[in-house]
Amino acid sequence: MRHSFLMVGQSNMAGRGFLKDVPPICNERIKMLRNGRWQIMTEPINYDRPFSGVGLAASFAAAWCKKNKNEEIGLIPCADGGTSLDDWAVEGVLFDHAVFQAKIAQRTSMLDGILWHQGENECSPERSSRYHEKFLLIVEAFRRELSVPDIPLIMGGLGDYLCSGMFGEYFQEYPLVNKELENFSNTQENCYFVTASALQANPDGIHMNAVSQRIFGLRYFEAFDKLQNILEPLKGENSAVNIDCERPLSKTERITLLENKFVKGDLSLEAYQAQLAKINSQM
Amino acid sequence: MRHSFLMVGQSNMAGRGFLKDVPPICNERIKMLRNGRWQIMTEPINYDRPFSGVGLAASFAAAWCKKNKNEEIGLIPCADGGTSLDDWAVEGVLFDHAVFQAKIAQRTSMLDGILWHQGENECSPERSSRYHEKFLLIVEAFRRELSVPDIPLIMGGLGDYLCSGMFGEYFQEYPLVNKELENFSNTQENCYFVTASALQANPDGIHMNAVSQRIFGLRYFEAFDKLQNILEPLKGENSAVNIDCERPLSKTERITLLENKFVKGDLSLEAYQAQLAKINSQM
Repeated sequence: MRHSFLMVGQSNMAGRGFLKDVPPICNERIKMLRNGRWQIMTEPINYDRPFSGVGLAASFAAAWCKKNKNEEIGLIPCADGGTSLDDWAVEGVLFDHAVFQAKIAQRTSMLDGILWHQGENECSPERSSRYHEKFLLIVEAFRRELSVPDIPLIMGGLGDYLCSGMFGEYFQEYPLVNKELENFSNTQENCYFVTASALQANPDGIHMNAVSQRIFGLRYFEAFDKLQNILEPLKGENSAVNIDCERPLSKTERITLLENKFVKGDLSLEAYQAQLAKINSQM
Repeated sequence: MRHSFLMVGQSNMAGRGFLKDVPPICNERIKMLRNGRWQIMTEPINYDRPFSGVGLAASFAAAWCKKNKNEEIGLIPCADGGTSLDDWAVEGVLFDHAVFQAKIAQRTSMLDGILWHQGENECSPERSSRYHEKFLLIVEAFRRELSVPDIPLIMGGLGDYLCSGMFGEYFQEYPLVNKELENFSNTQENCYFVTASALQANPDGIHMNAVSQRIFGLRYFEAFDKLQNILEPLKGENSAVNIDCERPLSKTERITLLENKFVKGDLSLEAYQAQLAKINSQM
């Protein structure tokens, strides 16, 4: 059985962490949806922009795999950078697109959770005060359209770094959004809030860096697994950056990584054939 | 008015040309669909695999822009590497996904054409002999579902390089597929065949290289523009690699390219701010 998770929200759900900053996660039990079909996950998962990178879903999935030994997880990337709650309104293109992707995933998986991160666009007293009312309509509609009335929704907070970056002036009111998100999780069924406390940003001061995304994914998984809010950093969470590094790669995973390099043009035909022969001879 | 084109088929429609081999195309009148929304096109357009690269759609769109001076083109990427005609069968996930993407594009554009490249997976006497019958069902269903009964369909041939690559043994019968594709265009309304004659492959011997994809896009546009088969290489087609290079970039395009580099981590904050200030002062 494959268990799938819908990724929705804005850029920090899509992921902007730099790929070069963390070890890759390649695990044949982690799949992602492309064109309605599942393939082995490679970051960037959520390719909403040319500069998509590391998001929280990869380490979330790796943590899920540690807990669920013989099953497969499928990620459904639908987040889109810079989008507001109004952009996500029911029957808008983002909402309809996400519902379609989740429905097509449901043909071959059980939809187990919704991962949401959004709010940088709502950092004003006026906008944040309407977060609850607007978001409730969206959550109710997702659950209704996808026939998953009780599905857990994990929603992360905004980073404390936001005010000190190059666009810091726009984010002064971010604590209001965090308050709304936490309040939403406390008043709505099966919704859980995850703090972004202590997480760090890229040089742009807006996007969470790759190491922090790995940690954030662990916190999201903890919320999903325990069905509770995560209001403090986790003990030992700094190990998140190496979350899938100790496990020896399977033959399929090694061939996947090799093929990715070769077809992309980063490996000569001769080197590819030699390394492929080596993998095949070892197993 | 925005005019959109649906990209469907297997890897050579998705594009596997190496990005480093050709100058980028950045034109604010060329958009691509992501999450149901339009954004300025950056390659890879059709991100079906981690190794997606240059396909024919970018130079097709650039040629379209030269002809249509004041309008916008939108690309709808739905091709998926390694897929067979059976994978594309009506009501399968690839078909349903493509129909959904095209429909969401139709909310904000006029669907003007379908770009198809598929056939490497049909290189046997048995499979190629059923190409016409299987593909006709797909084409008729696309036209019906999208309410575009007369929409032009441009379908390219398979490359002559196929037999000589590392997997050449699987492609010995590729001329049978080309014959079927050409025959389809000659017997079905508003379908046009484009030769892949003289085009070249990556070291894998399967995927068309970036320069050839630029040329192929020009041939596809010629077929669309003249509504006729293209059975020979075009005169002067080698200029395709520089198709959008002479045009001075607009302010929006320069900022887009700069932002892509910065957010991806390829430019420091200081360099980004300095270059942004320069662009803003010049215009």
